[in-house]
Amino acid sequence: MTKTNPGNYFEDFEIGQVIRHATPRTIAAGDQALYTALYGTRFAVQSSDAFARDLNYAHAPIDDLLVFHVVFGKTVPDISLNAVANLGYAGCRFLAPVYPRDTLSAVSEVIGLKENSNGKTGVVYVRSTGYKSDGTEVLDYVRWVMVRKRDAGTPAPEPVIPELPKALAADALGDAVPLLDIEAWDDDLSGSPHRFAAYEVGEKIDHVDGMTVEEAEHQLATRLYQNTAKVHFNQYSEGKGRFGKRLVYGGHVISLARSLSFNGLGNVFHIAAINAGRHVAPLFAGDTVFAWSEVLDVATLPGREDVGALRLRTVATKDRPCTDFPLKDSEGNYVEGVILDLDYWALIPR
Amino acid sequence: MTKTNPGNYFEDFEIGQVIRHATPRTIAAGDQALYTALYGTRFAVQSSDAFARDLNYAHAPIDDLLVFHVVFGKTVPDISLNAVANLGYAGCRFLAPVYPRDTLSAVSEVIGLKENSNGKTGVVYVRSTGYKSDGTEVLDYVRWVMVRKRDAGTPAPEPVIPELPKALAADALGDAVPLLDIEAWDDDLSGSPHRFAAYEVGEKIDHVDGMTVEEAEHQLATRLYQNTAKVHFNQYSEGKGRFGKRLVYGGHVISLARSLSFNGLGNVFHIAAINAGRHVAPLFAGDTVFAWSEVLDVATLPGREDVGALRLRTVATKDRPCTDFPLKDSEGNYVEGVILDLDYWALIPR
Amino acid sequence: MTKTNPGNYFEDFEIGQVIRHATPRTIAAGDQALYTALYGTRFAVQSSDAFARDLNYAHAPIDDLLVFHVVFGKTVPDISLNAVANLGYAGCRFLAPVYPRDTLSAVSEVIGLKENSNGKTGVVYVRSTGYKSDGTEVLDYVRWVMVRKRDAGTPAPEPVIPELPKALAADALGDAVPLLDIEAWDDDLSGSPHRFAAYEVGEKIDHVDGMTVEEAEHQLATRLYQNTAKVHFNQYSEGKGRFGKRLVYGGHVISLARSLSFNGLGNVFHIAAINAGRHVAPLFAGDTVFAWSEVLDVATLPGREDVGALRLRTVATKDRPCTDFPLKDSEGNYVEGVILDLDYWALIPR
Repeated sequence: MTKTNPGNYFEDFEIGQVIRHATPRTIAAGDQALYTALYGTRFAVQSSDAFARDLNYAHAPIDDLLVFHVVFGKTVPDISLNAVANLGYAGCRFLAPVYPRDTLSAVSEVIGLKENSNGKTGVVYVRSTGYKSDGTEVLDYVRWVMVRKRDAGTPAPEPVIPELPKALAADALGDAVPLLDIEAWDDDLSGSPHRFAAYEVGEKIDHVDGMTVEEAEHQLATRLYQNTAKVHFNQYSEGKGRFGKRLVYGGHVISLARSLSFNGLGNVFHIAAINAGRHVAPLFAGDTVFAWSEVLDVATLPGREDVGALRLRTVATKDRPCTDFPLKDSEGNYVEGVILDLDYWALIPR
Repeated sequence: MTKTNPGNYFEDFEIGQVIRHATPRTIAAGDQALYTALYGTRFAVQSSDAFARDLNYAHAPIDDLLVFHVVFGKTVPDISLNAVANLGYAGCRFLAPVYPRDTLSAVSEVIGLKENSNGKTGVVYVRSTGYKSDGTEVLDYVRWVMVRKRDAGTPAPEPVIPELPKALAADALGDAVPLLDIEAWDDDLSGSPHRFAAYEVGEKIDHVDGMTVEEAEHQLATRLYQNTAKVHFNQYSEGKGRFGKRLVYGGHVISLARSLSFNGLGNVFHIAAINAGRHVAPLFAGDTVFAWSEVLDVATLPGREDVGALRLRTVATKDRPCTDFPLKDSEGNYVEGVILDLDYWALIPR
Repeated sequence: MTKTNPGNYFEDFEIGQVIRHATPRTIAAGDQALYTALYGTRFAVQSSDAFARDLNYAHAPIDDLLVFHVVFGKTVPDISLNAVANLGYAGCRFLAPVYPRDTLSAVSEVIGLKENSNGKTGVVYVRSTGYKSDGTEVLDYVRWVMVRKRDAGTPAPEPVIPELPKALAADALGDAVPLLDIEAWDDDLSGSPHRFAAYEVGEKIDHVDGMTVEEAEHQLATRLYQNTAKVHFNQYSEGKGRFGKRLVYGGHVISLARSLSFNGLGNVFHIAAINAGRHVAPLFAGDTVFAWSEVLDVATLPGREDVGALRLRTVATKDRPCTDFPLKDSEGNYVEGVILDLDYWALIPR
């Protein structure tokens, strides 16, 4: 009987099962400093205590995606160590600001199970929640992964497939943002003159800049999140595998795209929800990431005059500039070079 | 009409114009930790709260060059996004200590303009000032860059070339250093027995050690400073460019040279002013940086018995040890391998 | 007369000599963040303020090995700059918890000297102690290095070889851990159900995972520790040397092995003592590190019901998985691929 973690197999999950994940993690200003060094993020709210406090935050909050990655990382050893594929996420909401010295933990509930027809794998749906040590929930999302069965002979469970929203409703947004004193918002300091009213549905923005990824960078990032997925770290085994090299953590791509999006979305200071995300193709060290965004929808928030919401699709590519907004071909397949298709709600001052 | 930042062109600048830069940045102890990891700096004042407090600082101050890079980085999107070349800096003074949790912002004033005879570019001189959220100025410097014109047909402005000091006067130094209780200075802990009186004008010091630069390192550094200059990050485009590879940010070289200079200048704890700086040749990942220094001048500071000033020239090279103090050939051209020629005032205990 | 540090030669050491090392270093939460990013460590006590406080710590303590590396780094310029080889360490005890904002300094006493028969080198034994600015000792260890003589003609000193314990006694352990409220230990959050009683002498654990090392990573780590050993940083000179490349700092390997050991030793939260360590072969960037451990002994601590001690041997390899627990061949030589053989005491809740 081994003391190492073999991970859970499809048979180990059952509907309603609740898994409390290791390792609680205190997020410090130093984590935010490292996050800045990894992605070059420039959103003023997360960068400056003074800017954030003038608006009504207690301090500069920790970057939304750093919170996401830390919570996500905790779920890996229990949920996806034996995963064949990460199939998607949905219904991700940011529920409370996270500040330096907050401690984050995560718990997951199994909400769906469906064995695949080959009898060797199955799809597991979990709702994962990140919370502070005082119990405050900070993040909530559903993801589904294809997981190996330990034994193909085990009978299939009754299939349960949860209903997932295509997109969150506008009234579910904004919980992680205190009511802001928006008069204090300074467009010079934030880096963009464009507020809520300036963005129109259907508008597309090429974020212009490109960022080349190095092995040391994505490894540092993924370890910072205490994410243990083996494919990111072990060249000895990955060198013998399908791609011959280490894969970059998908969340690293999301953070790169978000950081690049500052150029065009400088006032879009907070990710309020992720409606859906798809990692279309793998990214490797040496590749250069570009991004573009489309405004899918705009919405005001009930009871709030300070901020509005943009529903955005941000698409990332590798080794392919985005001047022509690459996405899908006439048959509906993603074109060569697209690596991420992310649908999310983000807040911007009105 | 694009929402991305196209940067300013030569025609966009006018004398007296004041530009408030994005993004304010709270500097944390974690930034200093990362700075230490990037350069291996060992000056005791910036490394130790206890050492700094014994001398009369509130805490260990943030490294001078980290302050410089953060302020400089803010100016890039507005001043030098369309720059053909960074021509120089002058008159840079450090005006107040910066401590963890201080928030830095930057503002620039256009103080000089001169169109080049080709009609396609011009030189822009700006005085940039970094300040804390309470208004305290921490840094002040002039730099000049060659910037593209949007349209060669635009008429040239009246040329204005500011008068710049060759070197700052000794009475302009020391504002960023509180009056020190110099009895508390411990040469064992600082790592050098050599104080102010031990250095003589004309003395040259080979700093001996070499440091090889990796892509991940200079990218992490330059993003930490939220510096968005494209040439440092994008292998896709730089691979097609003049050098075929990414350029290392010039400030990274300055920090490497400063860190190497500890070996020989261990008590030279504070850069008080930068008189002039020239990036003689580009640095690339894989190159190994060496450095040597010459004492150009020594000065006491009016009203201060605690510290004195050394005017230093620190020269950095790549893939060339500095045992023979490489600089210029008989025709006055920098010899092969020299990448940086920096003239600055630094403080040292008496 | 040079102002650069030439390092000490064998003749410069004498029995009883006490060397106070530069540079004092304030450790911040940001150092711990960077340490997490470098190794992906997941032990709950060091990761979470909340977890640590529930147990009776003031906060999450700084990782034991980060403390070790910082103290060790300080000794390098004085003890091993002219070292031919690091021969070993012994009797290393962790004496007090280190918290963010503590400042660490180091002092060494020469306790042994023995010239080698070739007359060109000698072995120097030092006891190094790390302490906080209030004088609290945090770490104490002996190491011995082979150091060059400045002049082969210098007469040999009277040989003195200190008696070193093969392993520390159990009653010397635990000073760096307050008496814990062990009822508060949560196995879900710590990531392992296995406590003291679950481990048996002779038990071997393959830690399964592998971690590939990049140049930027080990350089960042070694500079974070302000360790100036030249072989880690200078490709220009190392490229002409014995291996043709930079060597990874041995302590980096120890930290990687410790981090990998979480998978199987998740509750082994504290290194209380290092009995002996041997760097069997060098590690280079691009190599993938694996590890396995054997339980050498178990011990209760006098007067403590909260924690017990495991004496562990952790072996690290490069480019060689550890499913078969590689160590020595029938002739007692380490087998190909083994790079580290570390014997230490670690604490685990009862």
